[in-house]
Amino acid sequence: MKQQVLTEIENLYEEMIELRRDFHKHPELSFQEERTAKIIEEYQKELGLDVRTNVGNGYGIVATLKGAKPGKTVAIRADFDALPIDEQNEVPYKSQNPGVMHACGHDAHTAIALGMAKALVKHRDQLQGNVVFIHQNAEEQEPGGAKSMIEDGALDGVDVIYATHMENYLPVDHIYYNHNYILAASDHLEITIKGKGGHGAFPHDCIDVIGVGAQLISSLQQIVSRKIDPLKSGVLTIGSLHSGEKGNVIPDTLNLDATIRSYDPKVRQELHDWVQSITKNTCQAFGADYEVTYNWGYPATKNDPSATDQIIKAAKEVIPEENVLHMEPNMGAEDFSYFLNEIPGTYFFTGSANEEKGFIYPYHHPKWDIDERSILNGAKVMTAATIDYLNHHS
Amino acid sequence: MKQQVLTEIENLYEEMIELRRDFHKHPELSFQEERTAKIIEEYQKELGLDVRTNVGNGYGIVATLKGAKPGKTVAIRADFDALPIDEQNEVPYKSQNPGVMHACGHDAHTAIALGMAKALVKHRDQLQGNVVFIHQNAEEQEPGGAKSMIEDGALDGVDVIYATHMENYLPVDHIYYNHNYILAASDHLEITIKGKGGHGAFPHDCIDVIGVGAQLISSLQQIVSRKIDPLKSGVLTIGSLHSGEKGNVIPDTLNLDATIRSYDPKVRQELHDWVQSITKNTCQAFGADYEVTYNWGYPATKNDPSATDQIIKAAKEVIPEENVLHMEPNMGAEDFSYFLNEIPGTYFFTGSANEEKGFIYPYHHPKWDIDERSILNGAKVMTAATIDYLNHHS
Amino acid sequence: MKQQVLTEIENLYEEMIELRRDFHKHPELSFQEERTAKIIEEYQKELGLDVRTNVGNGYGIVATLKGAKPGKTVAIRADFDALPIDEQNEVPYKSQNPGVMHACGHDAHTAIALGMAKALVKHRDQLQGNVVFIHQNAEEQEPGGAKSMIEDGALDGVDVIYATHMENYLPVDHIYYNHNYILAASDHLEITIKGKGGHGAFPHDCIDVIGVGAQLISSLQQIVSRKIDPLKSGVLTIGSLHSGEKGNVIPDTLNLDATIRSYDPKVRQELHDWVQSITKNTCQAFGADYEVTYNWGYPATKNDPSATDQIIKAAKEVIPEENVLHMEPNMGAEDFSYFLNEIPGTYFFTGSANEEKGFIYPYHHPKWDIDERSILNGAKVMTAATIDYLNHHS
Amino acid sequence: MKQQVLTEIENLYEEMIELRRDFHKHPELSFQEERTAKIIEEYQKELGLDVRTNVGNGYGIVATLKGAKPGKTVAIRADFDALPIDEQNEVPYKSQNPGVMHACGHDAHTAIALGMAKALVKHRDQLQGNVVFIHQNAEEQEPGGAKSMIEDGALDGVDVIYATHMENYLPVDHIYYNHNYILAASDHLEITIKGKGGHGAFPHDCIDVIGVGAQLISSLQQIVSRKIDPLKSGVLTIGSLHSGEKGNVIPDTLNLDATIRSYDPKVRQELHDWVQSITKNTCQAFGADYEVTYNWGYPATKNDPSATDQIIKAAKEVIPEENVLHMEPNMGAEDFSYFLNEIPGTYFFTGSANEEKGFIYPYHHPKWDIDERSILNGAKVMTAATIDYLNHHS
Repeated sequence: MKQQVLTEIENLYEEMIELRRDFHKHPELSFQEERTAKIIEEYQKELGLDVRTNVGNGYGIVATLKGAKPGKTVAIRADFDALPIDEQNEVPYKSQNPGVMHACGHDAHTAIALGMAKALVKHRDQLQGNVVFIHQNAEEQEPGGAKSMIEDGALDGVDVIYATHMENYLPVDHIYYNHNYILAASDHLEITIKGKGGHGAFPHDCIDVIGVGAQLISSLQQIVSRKIDPLKSGVLTIGSLHSGEKGNVIPDTLNLDATIRSYDPKVRQELHDWVQSITKNTCQAFGADYEVTYNWGYPATKNDPSATDQIIKAAKEVIPEENVLHMEPNMGAEDFSYFLNEIPGTYFFTGSANEEKGFIYPYHHPKWDIDERSILNGAKVMTAATIDYLNHHS
Repeated sequence: MKQQVLTEIENLYEEMIELRRDFHKHPELSFQEERTAKIIEEYQKELGLDVRTNVGNGYGIVATLKGAKPGKTVAIRADFDALPIDEQNEVPYKSQNPGVMHACGHDAHTAIALGMAKALVKHRDQLQGNVVFIHQNAEEQEPGGAKSMIEDGALDGVDVIYATHMENYLPVDHIYYNHNYILAASDHLEITIKGKGGHGAFPHDCIDVIGVGAQLISSLQQIVSRKIDPLKSGVLTIGSLHSGEKGNVIPDTLNLDATIRSYDPKVRQELHDWVQSITKNTCQAFGADYEVTYNWGYPATKNDPSATDQIIKAAKEVIPEENVLHMEPNMGAEDFSYFLNEIPGTYFFTGSANEEKGFIYPYHHPKWDIDERSILNGAKVMTAATIDYLNHHS
Repeated sequence: MKQQVLTEIENLYEEMIELRRDFHKHPELSFQEERTAKIIEEYQKELGLDVRTNVGNGYGIVATLKGAKPGKTVAIRADFDALPIDEQNEVPYKSQNPGVMHACGHDAHTAIALGMAKALVKHRDQLQGNVVFIHQNAEEQEPGGAKSMIEDGALDGVDVIYATHMENYLPVDHIYYNHNYILAASDHLEITIKGKGGHGAFPHDCIDVIGVGAQLISSLQQIVSRKIDPLKSGVLTIGSLHSGEKGNVIPDTLNLDATIRSYDPKVRQELHDWVQSITKNTCQAFGADYEVTYNWGYPATKNDPSATDQIIKAAKEVIPEENVLHMEPNMGAEDFSYFLNEIPGTYFFTGSANEEKGFIYPYHHPKWDIDERSILNGAKVMTAATIDYLNHHS
Repeated sequence: MKQQVLTEIENLYEEMIELRRDFHKHPELSFQEERTAKIIEEYQKELGLDVRTNVGNGYGIVATLKGAKPGKTVAIRADFDALPIDEQNEVPYKSQNPGVMHACGHDAHTAIALGMAKALVKHRDQLQGNVVFIHQNAEEQEPGGAKSMIEDGALDGVDVIYATHMENYLPVDHIYYNHNYILAASDHLEITIKGKGGHGAFPHDCIDVIGVGAQLISSLQQIVSRKIDPLKSGVLTIGSLHSGEKGNVIPDTLNLDATIRSYDPKVRQELHDWVQSITKNTCQAFGADYEVTYNWGYPATKNDPSATDQIIKAAKEVIPEENVLHMEPNMGAEDFSYFLNEIPGTYFFTGSANEEKGFIYPYHHPKWDIDERSILNGAKVMTAATIDYLNHHS
C-alpha cells in the first residue's frame, strides 16, 4: 500500500506545484494569513478531513485524517506565513502582494501537506492509524503560532511529528538529517547603559557610558570563552552598538542589541544568567544604571533519534542512498521546537537548490526560489515515514 | 594721562553698549562676517587709524593707532564672529538673524576694542608707542582666522598682545588670570574600524568590529592613565560610538568620534602617537582594517608670566584687588593660542555673570547674555595695561 | 574459535592481575622504563612472538604474532610508563619506587596486551591474519613515544589499531565509545611581555606590562568567543600569570602560561594563528616587546566510525548491552592520536571505578586504583574485536 | 644679627660634617634609633635647650630654644632613621651596621638641625621668639613618627615649620621650592580575587580569576582616565600580579599589589572609592569573591605659599638667585605632610648632587652619598628664614 500512496503523490506533483505557486502569488504576513488559511480549510474539508480552524493565537488549522484501522497518530506540520520582503524574481507566480513574499518555502511546505492528505485519503481504508495535518500560522514572527496551537490541543493524541524545510544551501534530491539538535535557540538581548552626560573635557563630572560599554562588551565575550562548557555551543553576538552624537560630548546612554544562540537548555540559561550578572555589576562598578531586556526566542529544535531513523529509512527509498546525509546543527531557530519539546519527532531539510536553474539564493533573500522537485521529495519522504511508522506500531 | 584715558573709557560706556547690542542684533557666522567687518572698518577709519581689511583668510581687520611718540607696540585682539544657535532671549537687541547668535561674547569683545581705540586716539599725542587692534574673524570655526592673519602680517612689529573673554562662570567685577596655560589644545579624532560583516551566529566567518572596538576603547583609556605624565593634563573622551543596525547581524564597520585635550605640546604629541599605535595594532590583532582621521585643532593658550603680571596690576586698579584671582586652566580651546605662540601676551577672563539679573547661562547657550559692566571692566583693564606697558618700555 | 580465546582470557585473569600488580609495584618514569620493557620483551619472546626492542625514541617494543592463515593485521597498543606521583594507597602492590606511581592505568593496559598475546598465541593455527602488540613507551611526557615508534615502522603492515584506557569516572563493567573525536589536542603556550620597568609613580617613563597584559588576556579570550566556529570546541585557559614584586615598582616583564585545547585541526591552527596575531599586535600597540613559545602537544584523537562499530559489537558480547555507551569527547590528550592519524582504529574507555571498594580517584591522583575486573573486560573486548575483524576480512 | 648667626653656621660646617658622618657610620632602622636619639638628646641638652624625649610612638625628640625676647615660634623638623640597605660606598664613614644605611640623607638633616641649634643658641639674647627642633623618628616606615609626635604635643605653640630634604636629582648650590603640593599622598592597595580553581579544560566548572583579573585591571585603569579631574593628578600603578602555577590548571586566587598616588584629598578619596566599587562589582560580575586591603599611607605634602616665600627669600641670600627654582611636585611621599596639615610651613629640596665627585645616585640607592656643602646650604637657608620670620612677626 505504501508504494501505491507514493505513486499517488507522484501523480499529484503538478497539483502540488499549482498549489505552491498560488500561495506564492498571494503571500500573507504572520498573523494575517486569512486567504491562505481559507484555501487550506476548504481543501482539507473537501477531502473529508476533520478540520478545526483558528487553533491557537491565529489562523492555525488542524486537519485530521482518521484511518480505517486503529493505530497510532502521526502529525505532519506545515507552516504557511510569508515575509515582509519585496520579491525580485520575474516569474509568472511572482508575489502579487508588494512587500510581502514567500521567501522561506512555507508555500511549498503547505503544498506538501495538502498533497500528502489527498494521497493518503484515497487509501484511508488501509491506513492503520491517523494522520494529523498541523497547518501552523506565524512561524516567522515571535511568539509564533506553534506554542499556542499546542496549548489549544493541536498535539492531542499525536504520537510522533514530522516536518521538513526547503533548503537552498543544499542541492535538490538530497535530504539532510540530524539525530540530535538541528536548530538553535535564538534569544535577543537589549541593554541600555545609563550614565551621566556632560562636556567631554570633564569626564570626572560624568559617568562615561562608552568607557563602561567597552568593559561590558569585553566581559560579555568571556561568557562564551570562560563560562560555557567548551563541548557545547553558545554564541553571543552584539550586532548593534550606539551612543552619542558628537566627539566632545559625553552621552547619557549607550544602547546595544545582541543575539544569543545555543542548543542545550542549561547553556541557554547560563548565558542568560551571566549576561544579567555581568551587565548589572559592570554598570554598578562605574556608578552607571542600566536596563536589560532579554527576549527569550524559540528554543532549540532537538530531534528524536528513532523518529530520525524513520525519516532516514524513508529517504533512502525515495532518493539515492548516498544523498541522505547527516548535517551539522544549524544556528537558525524555529518554533517547531515547541512540538519536539512535547512529543518525539524530527525536523529535516529537503534540498531545493539547483545551480543551473539559478535556485541558489538563501532563504529571506528577495530572489529566493526553489527547484520544485523538492516538493515531491519532501512529500514522498514524509509519506513513506508516516506509513512505515503506522504499520510498524499497529 | 592713563587716568584721563580711563575716564574717557567710562564716558564711552554707553556707546560701547550700543555697539555691542548692534552687533548682537546682527550676528554673522564665521567666514561670513561681512556687515560686522564693514562697521569695524568704518569706525576705525573714522577715528583716523590705519586700517587693513581682508587680512588673512577672511574679513580680518588690522587697525593701527600710531602714537605721537616713539615706543613699543601693543596689540589688542578682539574676535567678531557669531554661532549657529537660535537665540532664546527676549531682549530688544535679540538676534535678527534666525539661527545665528552672538552666544560667546564676541560682540562685547569688539565693542571693547572700538571703545579703546576711540579713547586712546584722543590722547595720541601723549602715546609713547603704538596700539594695533586685531579684529579677528572666524574664531569659532577651524581653521580659525588667527593663524592666517598672523601669516598675513597681523603681528608685524607687535611686541605684546592682550585679549579678554567674557565669562559667565564668573561674576561681573572679577578678573581671572593664569600665568601659564589658561586654555587647552583641543584635537578631534575619528576612527573607523573596518571588519567583515555577516550572520551573528557565525562570528568565525566575520571580523567582529564591536569586539575589536571594545578592546580599542579600553586600550585608548590606558593612554591617559599609563602613557602621560601624571603631573600633566590630558583627556581622551569618546563621545560618539556607532555600529550596526540589528542584534543578529555582525556589521562591517564601527565609527567613533573623540575629543582630545591637553596643554603641554609633548603630551599632545604623545596622545596622538599612542592613539595611532593603539588603533593600528588593535585592529591588526583581530584582522581588521581601520581608518584614523586626526584633526589637529587649536593649540593650548599659554600666557606669558610678565604680560600676565601687567594685566594683574592693571586689574587691581580697576576693580577691587580681592576680585583679581588666579584661575585653574580651562579645558576649552581658542585660536588666540597662535598669537601667543609668536609673541608674549596674555589672555584673561572678565567676569560677566550676574545671578540677580539672570546672566547665568554659559557660552554657546541660547540664553547666554552678559552683565554689560564687564565691557567697561575689560576695556579699562586692557587700556591701563597698554599704557603701563608703553610707558614702562619707553 | 572466538569463544575459545575469550575463555582463555578468562583463565588468564589471575595472571593478568599478577602482571599488573608487578608493574604497579615497580613503576618507571617516561623514557626510563628499562625494567618494564625487559619484562615485556621476555614475556612476548617466551610466547614465541617476533619482538623488536628499542623501537623509536626509547624502550618501545613491537611484538608480532603471525597467524597460521593469511589475512589482515590488527594492532593492540598498550602504553607502559608511570608518573612522578607519590602513591598514597596502602596496598600490597604499592609502588616501591618513591615518588613514582602507575596512577594512570598503564600497568593494566600492559597486562591486558600480554594476556591477549598469551590467549591468542594458543590459537595461532586458526588465526586468519596477524596481531601486532605495540608496547609504547613514554605516553605521559611529550614528545611521547608514539610518533617516533611510527617513524620507526611500528605500523608497517598494520590495518587497524585498538587501544583502551582505564577510566574511574565510569563504573566497572561499562564501555564508553565515540565514533569521532574522543580526546583533544592539547597545546601549551608561554608568553613573556617585555616592557620597561621603573617607579610606579612615573608610568609615562615606563611601558607597563601589567596594563598591556590585561588587554592581552581580554583579547585572547575573544578568540574562542569570536574567532572559532561555535559548533566546534576550543579552550584557551591561562593558568599562570606572574609579574613584579612590589606594588610601587613597575616590572620589566610579565609571564603567562596557557593550555589550549581543540579537536578540529583547522580550529587548532586558528587558535595558534590568532594567539600569535593578538600577542604581537597588543604588545606593539603599547610599545612593548614580547616572546611567544607555542608548544604543539599531541593532536586530537579521532576514532574511525567502523573500527568503533567493531568495538561496540564486541563490547555488547562481553558486558550487558545497556552498559555500552556513547561518551562525549574528553578534553584530555593522548599520543595514541598519532596512530589514528595514520590508519583507522579506535580508542575507548573501559570503566574501572567501583565506589564500594573505594576505586573512585581520578587518574593522576595519588590514591588512584582500579577495579581489576576492568582488565578482564578490556582484554575480552579487544580480543573479540580483533578476531571479528580478522575473520570478517579474510 | 642674622648675618652673625649665618657666619656662626659657616664656622660650624666642619662640626656638622662630623656629626653627619658619625650618624652615617651608625645608622639605625625606623623605631630602633636608640643611639641616634641619645646623641641628639645629649647634644641639645648640652646647648641648654629644653629637651623632651620619647615623644610619640618612638625615639622622637623635641628640643626647644627659648629666645630672650617674646615672639612667635618656628619649628625645624629633621628626621633621623635609616634604611634596610647594604651600603656599597667605600668611604671612611661607611655604615658599620651591615644591611642598614643612611641612604636618604636623614643623617644630614639631623646634622643641620643640631648645627642650627648651636648657632642660634649663641644669639639667644637677640632672638625674638622661639625655635623648636623636632627630631622625628621613623619617617621611612609607616605609620611614621610624625603623626604620633603631633598627637604628643610636638607642635604645641608652634607657628610655622620648615624642613628640607637632600636631593641628588638636583646639583648642589640649588634650592627647589613649590608654593603648593610638593609631595604626593601614597597609598597601598592589595587585592585578592577568589575564584574557583580546576582543570584548565573545564573553565565552566571554575571561576577563572585570571579572566576576572584582566577585566579588573582594565577597569581600574579607567579611574585615572575617566573618574579623576584631568587638571589634578592621580596614579594607580599595579606593580605586582600573581596567580597560578601551571598553564593547564585554573588557580583559586589572584593577587595584585598597587601603589596609588595623588595630591588633592578629594581625588585621593575618589581613587579609593572607585577602587572599592570596581573591585567589588567586577568580581561579583563573574561570580568571584574578593578581598581588598587599602593601606592609607602618608597624605600629600602641601606647602603654605607665604612660608614658601620666606624660604625663597632666604635662599636667594644664601645661594645665587638663579639657582632658587620652582619645581614640579614630586610623586614621592613624606610624613612631614602631617605637620603641614596642622600649621603653615614649607618643605623644600636642597640640591646635593655633584657629578664630578660621583654624588649622583638617587635616594634609597646603596651608593647614595651627597656633596656635603648641601648641609651648609640647608642650614643657612632655614636659619635665615627662621630669623626673618621671627623678626617680621615681633
